[in-house]
Amino acid sequence: MGAGPLDIGGGHLTQREMFTRMLTSRPLPADVIVDPHTLGGVPVLEISIDDVTPNGTLLWFHGGFYVLGSPRTSAALAADVARRTGARVISVDYRLAPEHPYPAALDDALAAYVALLDAAGAAGGGFSRSEGRGAACAVVGESAGAGLAVALLIAARDQGLPMPAAGVLFSPYADLTLSGPSMTTKTAVDPSFTPEAIAVRARDYVGAADASDPLISPAFADLRGLPSLLIQAGSHELLLDDAVRLAARAATDDVPVTLDVTPGVPHLFQAFAPILGEGDAALRRVTEFLARRLASEAARAPRIGG
Amino acid sequence: MGAGPLDIGGGHLTQREMFTRMLTSRPLPADVIVDPHTLGGVPVLEISIDDVTPNGTLLWFHGGFYVLGSPRTSAALAADVARRTGARVISVDYRLAPEHPYPAALDDALAAYVALLDAAGAAGGGFSRSEGRGAACAVVGESAGAGLAVALLIAARDQGLPMPAAGVLFSPYADLTLSGPSMTTKTAVDPSFTPEAIAVRARDYVGAADASDPLISPAFADLRGLPSLLIQAGSHELLLDDAVRLAARAATDDVPVTLDVTPGVPHLFQAFAPILGEGDAALRRVTEFLARRLASEAARAPRIGG
Repeated sequence: MGAGPLDIGGGHLTQREMFTRMLTSRPLPADVIVDPHTLGGVPVLEISIDDVTPNGTLLWFHGGFYVLGSPRTSAALAADVARRTGARVISVDYRLAPEHPYPAALDDALAAYVALLDAAGAAGGGFSRSEGRGAACAVVGESAGAGLAVALLIAARDQGLPMPAAGVLFSPYADLTLSGPSMTTKTAVDPSFTPEAIAVRARDYVGAADASDPLISPAFADLRGLPSLLIQAGSHELLLDDAVRLAARAATDDVPVTLDVTPGVPHLFQAFAPILGEGDAALRRVTEFLARRLASEAARAPRIGG
Repeated sequence: MGAGPLDIGGGHLTQREMFTRMLTSRPLPADVIVDPHTLGGVPVLEISIDDVTPNGTLLWFHGGFYVLGSPRTSAALAADVARRTGARVISVDYRLAPEHPYPAALDDALAAYVALLDAAGAAGGGFSRSEGRGAACAVVGESAGAGLAVALLIAARDQGLPMPAAGVLFSPYADLTLSGPSMTTKTAVDPSFTPEAIAVRARDYVGAADASDPLISPAFADLRGLPSLLIQAGSHELLLDDAVRLAARAATDDVPVTLDVTPGVPHLFQAFAPILGEGDAALRRVTEFLARRLASEAARAPRIGG
């Protein structure tokens, strides 16, 4: 992303369009079914593979620093993960900054999550608010979407909602104060971003709030009670220490956590899995992790989304 | 270990005897073969499973804060891992402090490693000094043995020796300055140790050296060039942040690294795998990791130890 006209710190309307054009230039495989609808009043894109009966649901949050992107810009990776895991993806089209700063994205994430809980409860599944337990559902996020996924888990926990079976966090953006050591030590090797560009977008999302608010920067949050987390990052990214510190925080807070760092690869290298061995290997580990977690939850409660 | 007469900060001769008695009270399974010999002039215990042709070698370093323990005190866990992975274990009986402070243990570890390289080279295996590449060998360490394993990798790298295929670090003791946050935040939940007791044993090993020397405290080392590391810890241990900071260091230094933290369990909970689900699950992840790493090296070079 570093080369070419994309400068994520540029004018947000222009960059939003370039970002979308760049990440949607290749068609999805023919057997990927993309179904736009709404969940809890929030637009979502449901992504599944033709002829596959879903064995669970991945509530997905795309990247783009809370300013760029949409479910469509991360549909290729989401479809890849749906294919590998056998789950359906529900990708949340949360509102973007600067038009809608914090907490708009979190409000949308929470509304979608609550609706998913209610739908599962109404369908007789085990994943309901009243029963207060998880089911074959996990949250997945990329970059800002991974930070948002953690904020969602924290907010859901604080409201007494049941937790999903797991969280998968690809290169999480979890400190909008940009205080991670890698924000300075990795500038020479991160091919995608500059700290200055990220700072522009951070201001867009933080708005009048405090960047160190744990619901904006979950690297500073109390993570007690969260479900198993798998956190992946590349060593060639400014956001490396967001991943590391989030894992450290989770470990301290008695959350089952795996931090999985692949050297020499950039932000969201998993999106290159079709051509990058390290990306494929990382997604195989994601698949093993989700299979274990979704199976363990399915054993406790009927699945949803089948 | 917290209950009963063991106080690892007590007189070292008494505690060494108690530690040994406690950890060797149960006989090993009948099919475990234990063969004491020497490697590079260093006493070792070779541990294998009857009727299993080894598919690789695990060079193993026991725990005990560099003062207590022996290959026999960790033979049960080593035999469990040998059985799960199909590898043979060569467990190094390195010299102990305070009689033999740093760098005695590291010297012994290095001598054994070099002899293993040479034996493999002489046997026509690919794991030789002259060829400068790895083979179906990994290093495994528990607690102080895990810190020692990392120090060995650093020293071997600095001497231009080939790296093994991987390192598995159980609850590493990697900061003998005892500066990890968990050294204070986890005192109430660690059932095994106190910071005061660890400090006594740290002085035994450091001797006249500097506790922050990276070969004593690899949490402060430059880890570039090290092989894939799997680092496991429990969240209920004073040494949690040794594991976390070692992983952070590895990630920054472009080392493939997985940090795998299990909540609510103590130091070296894997030793309780026969009766503790979390221990068994953690060892299954170790087995998957080693299978992947040893197979990937075996594809490049003939195995040793077969």
